[in-house]
Amino acid sequence: MTHLIPDNRGRLLVACSDQPGIVASISSYLQQQGANIVQSDQYTTDPEGGMFFMRIEFDWSTERNSFLEIKEGFKKVAADFQFDWRMEQAVRKKRMVIFVSKESHCLLELLWKWKANELHVEIPLVISNHADHQKEVESYGIPFHHIPVEKGKKQEAEKRAIELIKEHDIDFVVLARYMQILSPTFVQTFAHKIINIHHSFLPAFIGANPYAKAFERGVKLIGATAHYVTDDLDEGPIIEQDIMRVNHRYSSEDLRIAGRNVERVALARAVMWHHEDRVIIHGNKTVVFS
Amino acid sequence: MTHLIPDNRGRLLVACSDQPGIVASISSYLQQQGANIVQSDQYTTDPEGGMFFMRIEFDWSTERNSFLEIKEGFKKVAADFQFDWRMEQAVRKKRMVIFVSKESHCLLELLWKWKANELHVEIPLVISNHADHQKEVESYGIPFHHIPVEKGKKQEAEKRAIELIKEHDIDFVVLARYMQILSPTFVQTFAHKIINIHHSFLPAFIGANPYAKAFERGVKLIGATAHYVTDDLDEGPIIEQDIMRVNHRYSSEDLRIAGRNVERVALARAVMWHHEDRVIIHGNKTVVFS
Amino acid sequence: MTHLIPDNRGRLLVACSDQPGIVASISSYLQQQGANIVQSDQYTTDPEGGMFFMRIEFDWSTERNSFLEIKEGFKKVAADFQFDWRMEQAVRKKRMVIFVSKESHCLLELLWKWKANELHVEIPLVISNHADHQKEVESYGIPFHHIPVEKGKKQEAEKRAIELIKEHDIDFVVLARYMQILSPTFVQTFAHKIINIHHSFLPAFIGANPYAKAFERGVKLIGATAHYVTDDLDEGPIIEQDIMRVNHRYSSEDLRIAGRNVERVALARAVMWHHEDRVIIHGNKTVVFS
Amino acid sequence: MTHLIPDNRGRLLVACSDQPGIVASISSYLQQQGANIVQSDQYTTDPEGGMFFMRIEFDWSTERNSFLEIKEGFKKVAADFQFDWRMEQAVRKKRMVIFVSKESHCLLELLWKWKANELHVEIPLVISNHADHQKEVESYGIPFHHIPVEKGKKQEAEKRAIELIKEHDIDFVVLARYMQILSPTFVQTFAHKIINIHHSFLPAFIGANPYAKAFERGVKLIGATAHYVTDDLDEGPIIEQDIMRVNHRYSSEDLRIAGRNVERVALARAVMWHHEDRVIIHGNKTVVFS
Repeated sequence: MTHLIPDNRGRLLVACSDQPGIVASISSYLQQQGANIVQSDQYTTDPEGGMFFMRIEFDWSTERNSFLEIKEGFKKVAADFQFDWRMEQAVRKKRMVIFVSKESHCLLELLWKWKANELHVEIPLVISNHADHQKEVESYGIPFHHIPVEKGKKQEAEKRAIELIKEHDIDFVVLARYMQILSPTFVQTFAHKIINIHHSFLPAFIGANPYAKAFERGVKLIGATAHYVTDDLDEGPIIEQDIMRVNHRYSSEDLRIAGRNVERVALARAVMWHHEDRVIIHGNKTVVFS
Repeated sequence: MTHLIPDNRGRLLVACSDQPGIVASISSYLQQQGANIVQSDQYTTDPEGGMFFMRIEFDWSTERNSFLEIKEGFKKVAADFQFDWRMEQAVRKKRMVIFVSKESHCLLELLWKWKANELHVEIPLVISNHADHQKEVESYGIPFHHIPVEKGKKQEAEKRAIELIKEHDIDFVVLARYMQILSPTFVQTFAHKIINIHHSFLPAFIGANPYAKAFERGVKLIGATAHYVTDDLDEGPIIEQDIMRVNHRYSSEDLRIAGRNVERVALARAVMWHHEDRVIIHGNKTVVFS
Repeated sequence: MTHLIPDNRGRLLVACSDQPGIVASISSYLQQQGANIVQSDQYTTDPEGGMFFMRIEFDWSTERNSFLEIKEGFKKVAADFQFDWRMEQAVRKKRMVIFVSKESHCLLELLWKWKANELHVEIPLVISNHADHQKEVESYGIPFHHIPVEKGKKQEAEKRAIELIKEHDIDFVVLARYMQILSPTFVQTFAHKIINIHHSFLPAFIGANPYAKAFERGVKLIGATAHYVTDDLDEGPIIEQDIMRVNHRYSSEDLRIAGRNVERVALARAVMWHHEDRVIIHGNKTVVFS
Repeated sequence: MTHLIPDNRGRLLVACSDQPGIVASISSYLQQQGANIVQSDQYTTDPEGGMFFMRIEFDWSTERNSFLEIKEGFKKVAADFQFDWRMEQAVRKKRMVIFVSKESHCLLELLWKWKANELHVEIPLVISNHADHQKEVESYGIPFHHIPVEKGKKQEAEKRAIELIKEHDIDFVVLARYMQILSPTFVQTFAHKIINIHHSFLPAFIGANPYAKAFERGVKLIGATAHYVTDDLDEGPIIEQDIMRVNHRYSSEDLRIAGRNVERVALARAVMWHHEDRVIIHGNKTVVFS
């Protein structure tokens, strides 16, 4: 729901140990700055000694101060409570890079939604280990970088990708069915900033060929999982999952094709929540203020 | 999610014209009372001159004050901003009366969930225009009142029902497939306190025999709608809707039977949200902080 | 599930009054031709004097006869029972024309699925009353015809469209959010061959602006309906419907944008079932052997 | 869809290696007996050397022969093609025993549907290792057998259960959240006749405490799986699965409570399909003609 974002809309995400007075302090600070809270969502894991999570959307008074002043002033409140926090200017488009291999459905879903203004992001580049989708990506006016991953030369390929990502000042990385396992170096370089779509309902069917495994097991639903990437394969914090109903008539190949619809939906939703600052990672889980 | 409600948990629902400082004032007040906000959800229809809605769950400090003191003290804040508001003690069980006719699935769903402590309510009585379910209701230890609605004597029947409801100090009324149309007098006596389940996906198939109509139209999904009752039949504020997939093999009777599953699920969810103070009625719509 | 269609796969659709011996006669005929039934689905509305519907997929023996011989020979069986029937060679791609206005999501969904070999059709042309999507359509190698519908000149526009459709030997027409009402002449020219996507859960919100109406009514689910077009606006036989959950936070515009996902899914499924010969129209309903 | 079953309705389930002429032979046989096929569904795994599965509902001519004659006569057809088959008289109610422990939601779902004539079965007894639900079960007029499973005396308990099952001529066993692992002896005694509900979306969260595991993993959907019991825990052929959406607000206990709704729905659907002879087990999978 990004179609009309006011210039003076801010977003605040806060996580901390629960303690009295947090909401009052935050809201009083915003009020003092002349800001109006237009949406807020808060959740405490446990009233006794639990974690406190909050997301606020506010419109600040541009006549009185700038976004940076609001943000700067908030540091004092944050320090008092030892917040883990971030404040974002909603209108700023986050810069997203898409990694893709041969299957294009997730890539195209993101490009469509971007072109239709459903995804309020910039896509400075697409990176692929194959050249297949160069023409299509470029038809959207987006530069395409073909970085082949040759046997034994993965490190070089990743190095090139990391350079490109830094060069383009990227906010987050989306693996849109990028069929390469990333090294710990890569993952740690962009910790909590890489979103992957796994083509199963995790934790079922971790690893390769989940549709073949689903076929073997005879499941009646297939799923997809969008998650942040960590060093443990398919074990990172889950952002979104979805499923569809199948039956005995589906071959392994049918599952693979049908599953595309679930994958692209789950991934697009996760990307939307991420770029709208709706997701807080806590340990190996997410709080999603959707 | 009512299985463990602390004695000192309060709930606050607020609706008003949006204006600066609302959240700050509410949260400051609660903090001054030593209360801790454990969950909050807020929504503004439109940053410019829109409506402000908020739901807060808080734990107050029983050593410092009582619920009534918290509530009493809040009146000043409420007056400043001209809130339409209510504050509830979460642990207090709302008193619910169920009206039923011959079909028992919605009644039984509510009784089950009540017995399994999923519905944190009291059910002082069940009222029916038929005697069919007397034994079953009484096996739950709940008094059953058979109030037949004879032709031309509807007014008397309603009068008796109103008396019973007042006598038992009922908080809200659930029409669990009660197949009688209530008079404006009855509806206005319990305005915004009557929840009905309509056996279609409103506004499709308003009125009688929705499954027969759905069969005639050849729909591929059937639905159910839980809504507050107003004078306009099937036009009140919708609380919850759900659907299920059907196909050409379903006869009108099959739809009716299959639909029971959707009806009871949608109704139970609406009742839960209502008794957990998650619903604010605004005009002919609801804000549901689920 | 069209990714691998054998050259000798046939499909038979049959509708008739129920009577003894239909299945035996059909299957005996196919066996005599050396054909092997690989899938069949049958349904009788009512064992006593009802309608009989059947769909069969079979592989015929190419060494013994051609598709035309199989089809020709079947006429006798069909005459005996007064079948309303059709037999199709599965491998033959049906020729589909897409009509579109300004919103491209349904168009693009179909083009994608077509390019990904999920839709086993030919798309000889796309017709639009606006020029907006010319470049995109042509990038798929598909001719784009811009036929403006000027005030008072609708008849001419339709005439041009009909000519094009006949010229290109089109099997069926898809209205992918084509925002023009077609004349009875057009509808009757392609009776039972025009699929439309309506952006509501019919019969709710018939006519224009369903999302605005859904917003006004405060529904908790929005839907889309794919149906065959008849002279009665939004009243034709429903092929497929789907829904998604929404809440009070959705503005009318949010509903419109979110609804795109439901529309394209429901339409794509209907188109797939139609081109795979899975749909039999009976009166104002469909039998879908999905 | 069992509300009106004609006395002369038969059901035929067939599995065999695919070969030409199967459908013709079956349908010709039925026609010769004066039977009318009212529904049929067929599926072949692979046109080349695959498996053939078929389900037929037919109405036989009671004036000409009895069910036993129809069945007896079919043996010749079956022998010709080496069918694995069974023929059932639809009106005969299968005899079902329910095993339950402390959680009653699945038990009650089945009892309700049975009482509402949605489940066309007989329930000669309920067996439990706890006495908790005795009164409730008996209020339905169903004998309740309390067979405690004491440490080290499991074998005796099972022996008693097996005796009861045989005594009551039971067709199939439903484990409605029966929290005991059955011995290989028990499982093999009723091979392919025991349906279990597992409270997760298998193969995710095999074994004990799936909701605690789901909470730990931070999944966004929880599920339930109805499957036939084999010696491998939670590895038997899946009949039905369903899911519901959850979020970060759900504690492990909340998941457990919410999951009840999914469990009872998935189990009830599996039981319905089983007793309506809609399920064929093939290897470790099921073909469900729903």
